[in-house]
Amino acid sequence: MNLASDNIAPAHPAVIEALARVNEGAATPYGKDETTARVEALLAEIFEHEVGVFLVTTGTAANALALAQMTPPWGAALAHHEAHVMHDECGAPEFFTNGAKMVGVAGADGRIDAGALADILAKNFWTPPTHVRPASLTLSQATEAGTVYRADQITELFGIAREHGMRVHMDGARFANAVVSTRETPAALTWKAGVDALSLGFTKNGAMAAEAIVLFAPELIEGLAERRKRGGHLWSKSRFIAAQALGLLENGLWLELAARANAQAARLTLGVAARGLDLAFPVEANEVFVWLPAEIHQGLQDRGAHYYVWESDCVTPARGGRPREVMARLICSWATPNEDVDAFLSAIDGAAPAKRASRSPGTPLF
Amino acid sequence: MNLASDNIAPAHPAVIEALARVNEGAATPYGKDETTARVEALLAEIFEHEVGVFLVTTGTAANALALAQMTPPWGAALAHHEAHVMHDECGAPEFFTNGAKMVGVAGADGRIDAGALADILAKNFWTPPTHVRPASLTLSQATEAGTVYRADQITELFGIAREHGMRVHMDGARFANAVVSTRETPAALTWKAGVDALSLGFTKNGAMAAEAIVLFAPELIEGLAERRKRGGHLWSKSRFIAAQALGLLENGLWLELAARANAQAARLTLGVAARGLDLAFPVEANEVFVWLPAEIHQGLQDRGAHYYVWESDCVTPARGGRPREVMARLICSWATPNEDVDAFLSAIDGAAPAKRASRSPGTPLF
Amino acid sequence: MNLASDNIAPAHPAVIEALARVNEGAATPYGKDETTARVEALLAEIFEHEVGVFLVTTGTAANALALAQMTPPWGAALAHHEAHVMHDECGAPEFFTNGAKMVGVAGADGRIDAGALADILAKNFWTPPTHVRPASLTLSQATEAGTVYRADQITELFGIAREHGMRVHMDGARFANAVVSTRETPAALTWKAGVDALSLGFTKNGAMAAEAIVLFAPELIEGLAERRKRGGHLWSKSRFIAAQALGLLENGLWLELAARANAQAARLTLGVAARGLDLAFPVEANEVFVWLPAEIHQGLQDRGAHYYVWESDCVTPARGGRPREVMARLICSWATPNEDVDAFLSAIDGAAPAKRASRSPGTPLF
Amino acid sequence: MNLASDNIAPAHPAVIEALARVNEGAATPYGKDETTARVEALLAEIFEHEVGVFLVTTGTAANALALAQMTPPWGAALAHHEAHVMHDECGAPEFFTNGAKMVGVAGADGRIDAGALADILAKNFWTPPTHVRPASLTLSQATEAGTVYRADQITELFGIAREHGMRVHMDGARFANAVVSTRETPAALTWKAGVDALSLGFTKNGAMAAEAIVLFAPELIEGLAERRKRGGHLWSKSRFIAAQALGLLENGLWLELAARANAQAARLTLGVAARGLDLAFPVEANEVFVWLPAEIHQGLQDRGAHYYVWESDCVTPARGGRPREVMARLICSWATPNEDVDAFLSAIDGAAPAKRASRSPGTPLF
Repeated sequence: MNLASDNIAPAHPAVIEALARVNEGAATPYGKDETTARVEALLAEIFEHEVGVFLVTTGTAANALALAQMTPPWGAALAHHEAHVMHDECGAPEFFTNGAKMVGVAGADGRIDAGALADILAKNFWTPPTHVRPASLTLSQATEAGTVYRADQITELFGIAREHGMRVHMDGARFANAVVSTRETPAALTWKAGVDALSLGFTKNGAMAAEAIVLFAPELIEGLAERRKRGGHLWSKSRFIAAQALGLLENGLWLELAARANAQAARLTLGVAARGLDLAFPVEANEVFVWLPAEIHQGLQDRGAHYYVWESDCVTPARGGRPREVMARLICSWATPNEDVDAFLSAIDGAAPAKRASRSPGTPLF
Repeated sequence: MNLASDNIAPAHPAVIEALARVNEGAATPYGKDETTARVEALLAEIFEHEVGVFLVTTGTAANALALAQMTPPWGAALAHHEAHVMHDECGAPEFFTNGAKMVGVAGADGRIDAGALADILAKNFWTPPTHVRPASLTLSQATEAGTVYRADQITELFGIAREHGMRVHMDGARFANAVVSTRETPAALTWKAGVDALSLGFTKNGAMAAEAIVLFAPELIEGLAERRKRGGHLWSKSRFIAAQALGLLENGLWLELAARANAQAARLTLGVAARGLDLAFPVEANEVFVWLPAEIHQGLQDRGAHYYVWESDCVTPARGGRPREVMARLICSWATPNEDVDAFLSAIDGAAPAKRASRSPGTPLF
Repeated sequence: MNLASDNIAPAHPAVIEALARVNEGAATPYGKDETTARVEALLAEIFEHEVGVFLVTTGTAANALALAQMTPPWGAALAHHEAHVMHDECGAPEFFTNGAKMVGVAGADGRIDAGALADILAKNFWTPPTHVRPASLTLSQATEAGTVYRADQITELFGIAREHGMRVHMDGARFANAVVSTRETPAALTWKAGVDALSLGFTKNGAMAAEAIVLFAPELIEGLAERRKRGGHLWSKSRFIAAQALGLLENGLWLELAARANAQAARLTLGVAARGLDLAFPVEANEVFVWLPAEIHQGLQDRGAHYYVWESDCVTPARGGRPREVMARLICSWATPNEDVDAFLSAIDGAAPAKRASRSPGTPLF
Repeated sequence: MNLASDNIAPAHPAVIEALARVNEGAATPYGKDETTARVEALLAEIFEHEVGVFLVTTGTAANALALAQMTPPWGAALAHHEAHVMHDECGAPEFFTNGAKMVGVAGADGRIDAGALADILAKNFWTPPTHVRPASLTLSQATEAGTVYRADQITELFGIAREHGMRVHMDGARFANAVVSTRETPAALTWKAGVDALSLGFTKNGAMAAEAIVLFAPELIEGLAERRKRGGHLWSKSRFIAAQALGLLENGLWLELAARANAQAARLTLGVAARGLDLAFPVEANEVFVWLPAEIHQGLQDRGAHYYVWESDCVTPARGGRPREVMARLICSWATPNEDVDAFLSAIDGAAPAKRASRSPGTPLF
């Protein structure tokens, strides 16, 4: 029972088939192949907008390249203080921007708080040339806390950013999960709400390794081809990144797989809630953050459960469940089998059977 | 008939099969999977040496990361003045090293000349801190001119480099072709000859996109994991790079495919030579540089032949063939069909039938 | 009445005289001159330790260069969250380190709190290669809040840093003021307490523009000459930086001038306290942070007083003085005339005469 | 007798006086002082053009900052292959541009050859994104070979650069010497001939350490203040850089001092020529490159003469003087006393008395 991440999953068979399908004869290299062209056209259609598309293979590359297009070396990129780009990319944004500053913004449940954003931008440390200038805002969708931004929430943050001349980037490593969760269109969640550039993740969604930098603002295109090349991210046999994207985008498989992951997370959530465990964040996509009594955590470890122990400064207040001793991050992917979830829940029971769940009936779960 | 590059080829079916084979169940991400471990073990065996292995997906990334481990920002990396790292990576080495200097060294036929290397290192512009220091030497194997370095040639260059405290890197985008061509062992062509780090290319060899940075000097390992991560080159689903390498390394397929490419290039060479065309460089691997009269070049273009028109300052002297008007770079891959070579030769004949080849019998061709 | 900063002051006459004194005949350039050698020797004597000395002309350069010697691109430099290096150098540390991360640490009164430091280092975001590693700790002495670190406080922070393999840097833009304030020796406040490198500021102290990077850890020397050169900070006529340092260091003028600045700040503090104004931080050097009622602030502006309106998240709790509406940062330099302080205090009286100061007799002021 | 460089000279007394003159009372820091404003106005007047002015203290900083404004990380800056920016700044241009490529262009006597420039720009390695793009051309005025560019020569090079969308920078470390030598106006040698940005050197000209980045193209201003700040090159007490520039610019002292240096170099040239020694380059400013027989070089060393032994690939052909065994670079500054030149010439005579000079009467010397 491995709930460590959605990146432990294999690729969806359709992705491997797509690879095999394009693996025929010669193809123009370096992104000039037909498969790449089809992905570009498909993304324009899906997003209902002209787009600049740059395929790469890691979210770190997609985020860092996109931010570098928006953030001069003497700029700041603002992100939720627990965002992936802040901590989990070993300084990739700083490397690709040549030393821009990543500035953390607070907000409950992994979402940037509009008031906190306005406050930090009102501080007196943005006067050039002594200080860096606020250049970009990056939102994780879904967030690292497993929550999502609704279109109106994005629009609100965008409004604040625009007042300060900032660009808006979206780290969409789990964008598909957010689309499914919000039931809003890809367009509504991006350019219609002010997003200039999206890192659209396919890897966690079911690909082997594929991410698309999708630019809605054409003026951001200049120079990105060069950045990608000198970053070592331009594949010669580029059809093989494109094929993965195609395998997921065609027939809406990307949303189907995200729905499957979200549903599995919902099942898991019901299970842990029924056992009186408290959630650290609302579950809105495919990530479940649950408080475990130490005893249960130990029992799960003993039974071979894989998950990360998490830390956060922005958890939701306690609802009166079992003790909040260890925060576990549980992630479901398109490939998480029912058996893993069931085994996980059983292992909880084995570790420390719940008395009756203390949550009173009627309290919304997520 | 597409002889533009070995990167227009598809992946070898064994590579796709290897991908499919590992595409089962959960795997630890970020290079900690079993497939990666097997590749590491296999490379240690093939190179008869303990190795540090870092998988990435482009040669540009492999070269730039390896050079950054050997070259401080205030260092210089010396390379043949027509090497790929000098011109064709959009400044990736400069980016990853944070601004080290790439210094070109002359040499006939794409190989660094030992005398020229010694001369440039004897110049008076290496005094710190005014000048950068010579830090690394990088050799392309096979070279960008389609020639190879024999082990003793590498050893000689290494001797000079060592005297100046420099490290030696090998850009092995076509390393397999060189192994086949020289009939020397991977060990003989690398660490036994003084090579500290090798960019071992699988992409041109038959992979989709896979390259291994192979470190023979353990002190070069420190920091490389971080460089790779912040460069955006650490795959979460790393088994899928490793599987490609495995598919080629197991059963010696990598050498078999290189031999196939080299043999096809040899056939092509015989064909062009029989037509009285002059070679720009000796053909020692899978690249053929041939001088075309303008009339033939035009005829080939009209007949749909794909190849690059090349420029070089280090060509071999004329041997008295047909006029040296256009230099064509012709590359054969493992996948180049006989038909493409035959069609190419026929197209030459169609464009401007040769009188009898002027080369006298007995002159060695390559 | 200009209390805006200690960098609005002219150079001390002794500094100009020292310049004139060395302005005679030829001198070996690039730091190989005799004056530089004398500064090096004098600093070794003053710090009672062998030192590596690198002269530059701005604190930003000194800090960024020193941090770059201690912090790899994939490292983090930890600083008080309101430190100068965090905000006021337009990303110089990020630029010189090639993108290391600046991480803020909390602490009252501008001093890093040992508990907060230990806490942040205990977080789970320091696992390589996903995360950057904690590489250096930088302390401002005196702090940006006008307080100082005692030797034992530095030792405590150093102890925590050492446990994590971190180096310790001190931003000594106002080091002389701290020496005078603490009555501890330069040695006690630096290497004896674990400091590896000091940015020793002469500019605010009375120079035109001179700062010395003083390295106590000899292993930090390698590469710094090159960093300084390629940063454009190696003067050809280097005697003219050295002469400034010499003019201040000889005969202890540096401490005399710092004492003068501190004393003037103390006078100012007595004056504002006597008027019932509340201090935002204890006054321990030459910076006075005082809370002004808006009415007084306006009156001071109207009367032509120059000072910065400040913001801080780490102020000392209110002591029951007049309302805390505007925080003013008032800085005295060696050159601040009594007249400026007196005029400032009079202007307060003019703006809004105090009733009797509410502070009861006996409460310590600073 | 020290002819090693013009940077061994002291500052002109007028510069020290100018420093003392501004050393009075408070001044707004960070380039907002009155002295800086006067320098800006004066430069606009001297160059007969609106200018953006950014003062720094080293030529390395001025050049690297200016080039960074014109050259993206994926661009190339073209310079004479023996230019200072190519070799003598320890990679500062690469550092400040974040890894742009410095590309050397050939040309006799230290001047870029128009044909060589056109040729290199016609090469096939400028195709994005594989290759960097030609972004800037930088000309040293006077050149590192002691020659100068006339306005029409600059215009010709600019014409070629403009065709490729490149900007033109001038490294004017010895710009005053070139103005005096060419008898052309500062305007004629810069913006009228297509120069976008000039590094105007005062240090060698008689300052302590002062250089002005003078921008003629207003669109190059954006971001330079930030680059300067984060490079650590913004002085708080900025009046002290400005005062140096003012001391030289007022009353035309800068040109007077350059004329003095050039004249001394002419005297020296006459002396060496009269002794039958061959010049390596025409003497057009204050640098004299002369071929010494080994015996004379040894004799000069024994007699304590200071100069650099030089190397160059672009020397003028031999004119039949004494043997070309050692190339000596001799530089005269405003401060070089007659005694030094006389002693140097005497030392030649002492080392190896000339037979009659072999040069026939009437051959132009320079």
